[in-house]
Amino acid sequence: MNNEYKDIKVIGFDADDTLWVNETYFRDAELEFANLLARYETANKIDQELFKMEMKNLPIYGYGVKGFVLSMVEMALELSNYEVSNSTINAILNIGKDMLNKPVELLEGVEKTLKTLSVDYKLILVTKGDLLDQERKLEKSGLTDYFHHIEVLSDKQEANYSKLLNHLDIKPSEFLMIGNSLKSDILPLVNIKAKAIHIPFHTTWLHEQVNDDETKSKTYKTVHSLLDVIQVLN
Amino acid sequence: MNNEYKDIKVIGFDADDTLWVNETYFRDAELEFANLLARYETANKIDQELFKMEMKNLPIYGYGVKGFVLSMVEMALELSNYEVSNSTINAILNIGKDMLNKPVELLEGVEKTLKTLSVDYKLILVTKGDLLDQERKLEKSGLTDYFHHIEVLSDKQEANYSKLLNHLDIKPSEFLMIGNSLKSDILPLVNIKAKAIHIPFHTTWLHEQVNDDETKSKTYKTVHSLLDVIQVLN
Repeated sequence: MNNEYKDIKVIGFDADDTLWVNETYFRDAELEFANLLARYETANKIDQELFKMEMKNLPIYGYGVKGFVLSMVEMALELSNYEVSNSTINAILNIGKDMLNKPVELLEGVEKTLKTLSVDYKLILVTKGDLLDQERKLEKSGLTDYFHHIEVLSDKQEANYSKLLNHLDIKPSEFLMIGNSLKSDILPLVNIKAKAIHIPFHTTWLHEQVNDDETKSKTYKTVHSLLDVIQVLN
Repeated sequence: MNNEYKDIKVIGFDADDTLWVNETYFRDAELEFANLLARYETANKIDQELFKMEMKNLPIYGYGVKGFVLSMVEMALELSNYEVSNSTINAILNIGKDMLNKPVELLEGVEKTLKTLSVDYKLILVTKGDLLDQERKLEKSGLTDYFHHIEVLSDKQEANYSKLLNHLDIKPSEFLMIGNSLKSDILPLVNIKAKAIHIPFHTTWLHEQVNDDETKSKTYKTVHSLLDVIQVLN
């Protein structure tokens, strides 16, 4: 076994865009939303304003589809100068319900990787989405048995991960996190001296983007498919 | 120490209406909602229809304020025959934000009880609300240090508790749950052979109500204040 990872006992997997497609559905929803409000503003402007609204509401609503839908409703009222139709509001509610009912589309190599790693490690799912939504996706994915349990964090910052390690009763050097977001799945772990492996996804939410300065001099590995993780750990 | 509780290692506390006031705020919100829609229906009818809407949406939205607000918006569209004003929709969004920003009002004896019990037991917060909302309330409450961590369950049924015990690595006989809801905090625990202490709160959501048949022949203790728990365990 590679020396760098010899102490690892628990592996945390991000869920959305690491095990299954997610961000793509948010992008589709934003397009639909912009279409619904096309008579009031350009798609570009609607996109920008919706992002601002989400950021404004993030401290109170947190992450996940329900807060996203509430922000879309609020945005529709504002953008239309309180003239948006009830049927448009209803269409926005339905965008949210459709997102929550989407089938789960697994990314490449997920099942094989989890099957292999679950022999030697305790695997947990670590997400900041909505618990019910993530449990539902995990169930639909057929991957439930590979995971010891789901950890939902209200945010993925250093303090949240430190609490998690405390709760798991392990040292930072015994924890490896795998995920697609440098900001949420990688950098906070590196900063608390845990291990992290980055698997980029083709689409990244603006809120999750980091600049080069933030990754400079940080030690983590990047691979291009979850399958590569098996080799990295061997 | 009382024989019945001699094996207890971990005590789980329900949060809403066990440690702090919650249901009262939902009742207030429902009143406000009925006032907003008073031109369309009687308060009684609005109440009944909103409850039905919440039950219809529960499998997709789960518990917590955000799903409640989305159900109120949907209900307003339906009840008004798609004629409700944008300012009413906005007022509904604000009901939700106000609920999420409410100060935390502790129930009697909470701090003293937690302080005493935290000496001999590992205490955890076990809730089915929204994680961010519950973390925020815990922080506002000043009780954070008494709890090992927060467990958010997507529902509080037997299977959810069994998973929790598994995750905590303890036997049912080593777990005591304390809460105000017979349906969510007491009966599922009794059924999986864990311990439970019931502390009724003056207001119970219709969805949490149980009939006498369900409690008949179930063994659990009822006390009238959290302070009584200290004596029960001594």
